[in-house]
Amino acid sequence: MEKKSIRIGQAVTDYYFGGGLKQLATVTDKRHTVVLTDENLYGIYEKQLKGWKTIVLPPGEAHKQQSTVDGVMNQLIGAEADRKSTLVGLGGGVITDLAGYIGATYLRGIRVGFIPGSLLAMVDASIGGKNGVDVGVYKNLVGTIRQPSFLLFDAALLQSLPENEWQNGFAEIIKHACIKDAAMFRELEATDIAGYRKNKKALAALLRRNALLKTKVVQKDETEQGDRKLLNFGHTLAHALENLFQLSHGEAVAIGMAYASEISASELGFRQAERVKRVIAQYGLPTKLSFDPDPVFDILKHDKKRERDSLHYILLERIGKGVVHTLPLTTVKKIIEQIS
Amino acid sequence: MEKKSIRIGQAVTDYYFGGGLKQLATVTDKRHTVVLTDENLYGIYEKQLKGWKTIVLPPGEAHKQQSTVDGVMNQLIGAEADRKSTLVGLGGGVITDLAGYIGATYLRGIRVGFIPGSLLAMVDASIGGKNGVDVGVYKNLVGTIRQPSFLLFDAALLQSLPENEWQNGFAEIIKHACIKDAAMFRELEATDIAGYRKNKKALAALLRRNALLKTKVVQKDETEQGDRKLLNFGHTLAHALENLFQLSHGEAVAIGMAYASEISASELGFRQAERVKRVIAQYGLPTKLSFDPDPVFDILKHDKKRERDSLHYILLERIGKGVVHTLPLTTVKKIIEQIS
Ligand SMILES: NC(=O)c1ccc[n+]([C@@H]2O[C@H](COP(=O)([O-])OP(=O)(O)OC[C@H]3O[C@@H](n4cnc5c(N)ncnc54)[C@H](O)[C@@H]3O)[C@@H](O)[C@H]2O)c1
Ligand SMILES: NC(=O)c1ccc[n+]([C@@H]2O[C@H](COP(=O)([O-])OP(=O)(O)OC[C@H]3O[C@@H](n4cnc5c(N)ncnc54)[C@H](O)[C@@H]3O)[C@@H](O)[C@H]2O)c1
Ligand SMILES: [Zn+2]
Ligand SMILES: [Zn+2]
Repeated sequence: MEKKSIRIGQAVTDYYFGGGLKQLATVTDKRHTVVLTDENLYGIYEKQLKGWKTIVLPPGEAHKQQSTVDGVMNQLIGAEADRKSTLVGLGGGVITDLAGYIGATYLRGIRVGFIPGSLLAMVDASIGGKNGVDVGVYKNLVGTIRQPSFLLFDAALLQSLPENEWQNGFAEIIKHACIKDAAMFRELEATDIAGYRKNKKALAALLRRNALLKTKVVQKDETEQGDRKLLNFGHTLAHALENLFQLSHGEAVAIGMAYASEISASELGFRQAERVKRVIAQYGLPTKLSFDPDPVFDILKHDKKRERDSLHYILLERIGKGVVHTLPLTTVKKIIEQIS
Repeated sequence: MEKKSIRIGQAVTDYYFGGGLKQLATVTDKRHTVVLTDENLYGIYEKQLKGWKTIVLPPGEAHKQQSTVDGVMNQLIGAEADRKSTLVGLGGGVITDLAGYIGATYLRGIRVGFIPGSLLAMVDASIGGKNGVDVGVYKNLVGTIRQPSFLLFDAALLQSLPENEWQNGFAEIIKHACIKDAAMFRELEATDIAGYRKNKKALAALLRRNALLKTKVVQKDETEQGDRKLLNFGHTLAHALENLFQLSHGEAVAIGMAYASEISASELGFRQAERVKRVIAQYGLPTKLSFDPDPVFDILKHDKKRERDSLHYILLERIGKGVVHTLPLTTVKKIIEQIS
């Protein structure tokens, strides 16, 4: 197991790569640790969790709400968790977001660790310290920014991950490649999901590369004043589409990236939009959606990243180089109407 | 209005002394501010709040719960509060603790300011960044540590403060004097609550002195590793007594300080226990309570500041010099049995 201690802001996070769930006891004291997970993971990994105090939640975004937090707080009290306790989130982004938030506020903050279970959590959600819950339909409306004390990456957990969750994770990996890492983009072009599933070494290296890539972006800009904004590539449109259509997050981001590539072509002379779309498709994700632009733009008008009649939109100067661009809403609308 | 910008950890807080609620508009933009207050204060200061967006809560500790937070979150959404918004807490410690917590977590943190309304909030609760809510009977179980962006001190608000709330505030002021400020102790000996109510200048100076005294302690030790522990003088026993008897916080702290002074006499040769008790009584607070020690020590055994069979107990070396002392529970019990 490789250990890398990384400072973000005032906090230091220990990253453990190439390890396994079994090594959790070397990272945190069993007697003073509570593991938060969901029923899916608990069903599969119950044996490995024997002897650990666990709190098991029903799975799914619908449970990323304050009422779930309230229930966990009471279970922590029941388990006599105190200032010396550690809360470990084992699961997808729903669990790591919940564990991070609960750990940040229980007794005004106890030690927190994550064992990301989904590909998306490994390359994205578990990294950067953002945590929180949805409030009704408002996603991530409440939370904090606080780095975990450790991250334990166990690629073997992915063996039980459902196929569509792989695609969700790869949408973010393609995003990282587009905005920051042309070499990784070429690696992605050379293979596909089945390829990574067969090649454990390549998969472990990909996880590590993406976890460190996001870490570096966050390190430079924990509170999203600048560089961290690049991580929104594909996401502005995605959030609007997810609100209106039955799309997974990965599908919405894929479509958002494809459209952002087209906008990059027309605004910045970006010449690789076809390559971006090809790699998106190669990972089982859509690049197009027929939709009525009016309701979508009604939502964009309320986007948090909007200032008056312009949007902060993430574009590509070239593959591996994302940039923040301020675009009039009307321009975005015109281009999208042309494509759809 | 005097302005003092004070750095605590990474944050800078602007302290405004000698100002008034009326000057709030000079400190925060009316259009992007929401004022959180309680019905008592709203009833009295409705006129001064004209034109400000307000959220008004029922008063009292019973409402310092997550369900209140949930309601306020929904009202903030309804008011379209965004990242540019400021949340101002106007009220006693219940309101400032709630406003601090809500502001720390809404959209992962918006700008927060406090206008402390009670004497206790002015000299204690509004300062130091601790915020949060109770979970059922567990006081302050959930929250964060986050400094407000500004503090506006308006001594005139105290004109409407009920008499017993003055005593609560003075318990903390006497505490500050005991642990850190012998000169203030002598000032307190020379007058009483009626004296301060009549002398506006002396009262304003007292507020400022106490706010800055607590600030300095917190500045040295935001996360309570060392010096901040001194602020628990009188509080270890107080928390146990408050749980068992119908006492106000100030009464419980007063009794706790009186007993801690006796323990200081027997453990450290402190010679001024009588002076401490005299000043406590002078401010309308009790110095003694007849109680059965057994249930009280059952609670102390579960105290968070306990380590195995010892307690971190705050004692006085002399007036103006508090120290953290590790005492066996049995010693504390023996001394208290002798006094009661
Ligand atoms: N904090 C951040 O910076 C950040 C970034 C991106 C996304 N997120 C959040 O992450 C969430 C989405 O994450 P997600 O896609 O992981 O969702 P998720 O947590 O719901 O996990 C997806 C599904 O996969 C299952 N699963 C996870 N790991 C598994 C495994 N190893 N084996 C079998 N099943 C497994 C889960 O039980 C769930 O049913 C959203 O709530 C989103 O807001 C947060
Ligand atoms: N965060 C901290 O560091 C810290 C420190 C100490 C106490 N606290 C918290 O503070 C709370 C106690 O504070 P409190 O004693 O101010 O209680 P409080 O907020 O309940 O106020 C006491 C009463 O006085 C009323 N009031 C306040 N200002 C008034 C004014 N100007 N005119 C008329 N009425 C007024 C309130 O409506 C209330 O009825 C507790 O919840 C405690 O946990 C926090
Ligand atoms: Zn995403
Ligand atoms: Zn107190």
